[in-house]
Order: sequence, then structure tokens, then C-alpha cells
Amino acid sequence: MKIAVDAMGGDHGPSVVVEGAVSAVRELGATVILVGDTSAIERELHRLGATGLAGVEVRHASQVIDMGETPSHALRRKRDSSLRVAAELVRDGKAAAFVSAGNTGAALAISMFVIGVLRGIDRPAIAAVLPNLRGFTVLMDVGANIDPKPWHLFQFAVMGHVYARDILGIANPRVGLLSVGEEEGKGNDLTREAYDQLKESSLNFVGNVEGRDIYNGHCDVVVTDGFTGNVALKISESLAEMLSSMIKEELRRDLRSKLGAALALPAFQRFKKRVDYTEMGGAPLLGIDGAAIIGHGSSPSKAIRNAVRVAGEWAKAGLNEHIKAALEAEVAHGGREGNRE
Amino acid sequence: MKIAVDAMGGDHGPSVVVEGAVSAVRELGATVILVGDTSAIERELHRLGATGLAGVEVRHASQVIDMGETPSHALRRKRDSSLRVAAELVRDGKAAAFVSAGNTGAALAISMFVIGVLRGIDRPAIAAVLPNLRGFTVLMDVGANIDPKPWHLFQFAVMGHVYARDILGIANPRVGLLSVGEEEGKGNDLTREAYDQLKESSLNFVGNVEGRDIYNGHCDVVVTDGFTGNVALKISESLAEMLSSMIKEELRRDLRSKLGAALALPAFQRFKKRVDYTEMGGAPLLGIDGAAIIGHGSSPSKAIRNAVRVAGEWAKAGLNEHIKAALEAEVAHGGREGNRE
Repeated sequence: MKIAVDAMGGDHGPSVVVEGAVSAVRELGATVILVGDTSAIERELHRLGATGLAGVEVRHASQVIDMGETPSHALRRKRDSSLRVAAELVRDGKAAAFVSAGNTGAALAISMFVIGVLRGIDRPAIAAVLPNLRGFTVLMDVGANIDPKPWHLFQFAVMGHVYARDILGIANPRVGLLSVGEEEGKGNDLTREAYDQLKESSLNFVGNVEGRDIYNGHCDVVVTDGFTGNVALKISESLAEMLSSMIKEELRRDLRSKLGAALALPAFQRFKKRVDYTEMGGAPLLGIDGAAIIGHGSSPSKAIRNAVRVAGEWAKAGLNEHIKAALEAEVAHGGREGNRE
Repeated sequence: MKIAVDAMGGDHGPSVVVEGAVSAVRELGATVILVGDTSAIERELHRLGATGLAGVEVRHASQVIDMGETPSHALRRKRDSSLRVAAELVRDGKAAAFVSAGNTGAALAISMFVIGVLRGIDRPAIAAVLPNLRGFTVLMDVGANIDPKPWHLFQFAVMGHVYARDILGIANPRVGLLSVGEEEGKGNDLTREAYDQLKESSLNFVGNVEGRDIYNGHCDVVVTDGFTGNVALKISESLAEMLSSMIKEELRRDLRSKLGAALALPAFQRFKKRVDYTEMGGAPLLGIDGAAIIGHGSSPSKAIRNAVRVAGEWAKAGLNEHIKAALEAEVAHGGREGNRE
């Protein structure tokens, strides 16, 4: 099973991406196709002593999509971009999945256009796999669908359920609907309608959940629209950064604190490992007729390595077949289709 | 200037609230009217050695609104609740403001019904004053208006601007609109329309901001709908709690870490002070024809003390007059009224 890796994506370019992919090959036994400027990739392989390494193929692509580029521009004007060629390898069955730390919007648009949407899904969604007190919470959608309909949220719930079960190994994932109060009837028009559909489903639906339930481990999958989910994700990132900057500032302020911090270093390292978002590599694009993990633009090589691992697990688990089967089961279970406008 | 304090509100009841109010009187020279069950209040005053203390009045109210009670039930069935009597003292000009750590929804409904809405404002909003890397960010609305219209967001922006200027002392507050990307045109229908109105205003509008901008200090006022704002606030609270629990767990895991933590204790205390939400007492209910600060249900006495202080500053600053003037200036400045449906 081969994983296509967009070697040019991300803030750091090929150096970090190639390093991550090579460590997936060396440490995890993965097979990767590095897509991008051949000479840049070969240079990095040489630097890593990985020239000719078994399990590493290189596929040239002449263009790079910028982080700030609009998805439509990327689609129309960059037909030989590393991201698009990686997606084409998946479409053509030459790779089981692709990984990119590049432009998320472009990755989504290219995936939908080149690879296509999974049967039964109207809108693919971007999932974030966030650490909680006990394990991980799948939050989706975090930005693909700004104004979704209730049945889109229903589909997100089914996809999140399957992802949490197959990839995170949670037997019967608890699925919550993000709202502003736990009682039925709380929320906006979108969540109230989605609530009714989810209540009738065969999912382990725990009802409305609140912002706090993303991190307290009270549920495994949190479903929301892409606007709220995106805000939630970015707030989380920046709050964690702010708190960490503040603690570091205070710990460096005097000798006693510095000494204490030095002694407590292993504790801080254990803490860092627990909240390490790179553990899951990046955000899965669920609902495409293929598999793709999109890493943070600033992904370190470890994130790329783990993204390659998770992409492989996705393909190996037959996740997409399970999503299709789960959707069909829901249609058989109750009149979800009847709820569409 | 007297501040009415709902002595019965909050998870801890009168013990903590009376203690906070008494410390506002003793330490800050405030004058308070404690509203609630007289015997319970007198008992707490006695415990604090504050029986007969100058600056403390007691006003009996026979009922208490529960934290889980619906606002409509609280309004209709509890006409002698401590929260309502406190609001009536403001309406009758016997108090300049009220403070409660009770049911936020009930406080909002009672304020609107008893005190009324400020001229020029359609919908009051709940603001959260959140610590950022350099100071504070005003985030609003955090839950009063689940499905607001663009011109409501415009009004929130004006109120947030005045609050940040008058209470936080920021000369020309940068106002951002919470969205999913910085470029104009990003967002949902609501934010795109609100963007157009804010762009035409005389506010220091910095355009769309993202979730991360709440904590990085890039803007002073972040405007959003009550659904997104509520999710944002609760995510922040729970993420901060989770991170703090994890750090504590790791610091207690072995002797070396414990020793390090003990040495670094002053640094942790300085950190805690920087992110201390009790510094601002609670959430101002902006847009009512009076002044009210609603504290967290679990407010410690220090939060109550600071809420009394901020409520006094609000009244003293003539905040409401400034909001009215700012709204009128915007109407004169451009065709905001013309944008209403």
C-alpha cells in the first residue's frame, strides 16, 4: 500500500516533509510516493542518506500551491501542482491515500474534483482529532461547510462515528451535537433540526453537548457546522499557545523558577506529549472517495510521519466502505432521506 | 453610588457572595445593598464581623432563582426573587447597578423586562472579558442572541467599543468580526453582511478576525453571534481546565517533578494571576438601560468583589450615555439604519 505525499506543501517545504515521509518508511515500514519538484526532493533524500531507499518513490510535479491561494485558482491554474498530482495518484489507484501539509481549502477542492465524493455523502468534511483528558475527540466539520443543512450534520455524525471506531478504536463512540445548552430544544434552527434526525438514528447519540465537552472526554465525536468548528479549533490552538507562552515567561523570570522548571522538565515533556496534536498527523478529509490527511501548515516531520501512518490505517481499515454501509443502515433504520428538503 | 448584590445567586450561595461584597466595601470603599434572605445574609455578616458595617444595607427577598431554572419561569413565578429585587432597585434608581453570580439567562430576561433596553439597542448582549497575552479582549455576544441579524452585530460592536474604551481604558479599541478567514468575503451570510456595515462605520474596524485572534492580543473587541460566542467561551474554559489538570497530574507523578513544582510555585502563581478571570468580576450585560455584571456560578468572593468594582466603574463612567451617543454618531455617519430589513 502506497501513500502519496505532497512534498512541497506546508510552511517549511520539502525539507520537513521529506524527512517525515522517510521516517515513516524507516520506522513504520510505510511505502511513500514523494510528489513535487524532483531535484528538491532528491536533494533532501540525499541529505537524509535516503537516496534509493526501498519504499520511497519520487513523482515529479512542476507546480506548488501557495498557502494563501484560493482553491478555485489552485484548481484551474495549477494542473500540475504537487497536491493535485498526489490526488491523481489516489484517483488512479496508484496510491491508497495522500498526505499534505499544504493549503487545506485547495486540498478539499482538489479532492472533491479529482477523487470525487463518496456515494451517499453530499459534502465532505474536515475532521480535527483533538486530545482530551482521556484520549481523543473527533470534532467535525472544522471548516469545509460554512452553512450546512441538518442532514449534512447527520452525515458528519455517521462519518465521525466510523472514524472514531475504526481509527481511534472506540467501540461505540458517543456522538454529541455542539450547542449552547444540553437540553433538547436548545440551539439554533440548524442544531434543532439536526437533533431530531440524530435522535432517530442508530448512532450512540448523547444529545446536545457544549463547548466544554470537546475537552472533558464526555463524548468521542462532536458534530457542528464548519463555521463554529473552525472558530473552535483556532481558539483552542491560540489559547493553548497563549497559556504556554505565559507559563514560559513566568518560569524564566527568576532563578528559583528556572531551577524549578529544570527539575520539572520531564513532567512538562510528558504533558507536551499528551497534548501533542502531531500524534494524529493532521485532519482527515472525510467523505471523499479516497483517503487524505491534511496536516497543519507548520507540521513538523513527526506530524508528517504520523499522517502517513494514519492515512495507511484509513485505507487498510476499509473506512470508506464502512461509512457507506453505515449510511445505508441509517437509511434502512429510519426516514433520514425523508428529512431532506 | 450603591451597587445591589444578589446575595443568593451562584453555586455557593450567600456565604461567598456576602464575603465578596463585604470585601468590596472594606477594601474598595463601595456601598452595597445585599438582596436576599435577610436572616441568611445577617448570619454571614455576623460571621465576617460586618454586622452594622457602614456601606452595607440589606434588602429582603423571599425567593431564589435556581441555576437550572428557565428564564420565563423565573420571570413569571418568582416575582420576589433576589435577582429580580436587585434589578428593581436599579430600575427605581436606588442602586446604580446590580451584580449576580446566578442564572445568566434569568438575569438577562429580568434585566430586559424590569430595567428595559437602552434606547437605540435592539438586543442586549452578554460580553466576556477574556485575558489575552497583553491585556483583555472583549468577546460578545456570548449567549444572549443565538440567531442575531447583521445590525445586531453592528450594535454589539458599538457597545464593545465603548466598553473597551471606558472600562478597559483602551484609547481606540480595534474591533474585529469573528469569521473563518481574514479576507473580506470570508464567512457566512451573517458575517458578510455585518462586515459591510462595520466597514462603513467610524469604529476602528480591523476586519475579519479568526478564533486565534481572541487570545493573541491582535484586537480588543471580537464581535460574533451568541451561538459561536458561547461555544468559544465554554471551549476556552474547558481547554484551560484540561491543560491545567494535565500539568498538575504530571507535576505530581514523581518526587523530582514535585520538587520542581514547589520551587516554581511563585511562577505558577504569577501565571494564575495573569489568566485570572475573576479580575474583571464577570460578564457585563450590555444594552440594558442600567448596569449589571453577571458572575460565573462558581464565582469566588474575589470575583464578587471585582464585579462590584466594575459595576461601579460602569455607572460612574456614564457608559450607557456613551453607547447612546456612539450609536447616534453612527447613524449620522452613514446609512446603518438603511441596512435594516
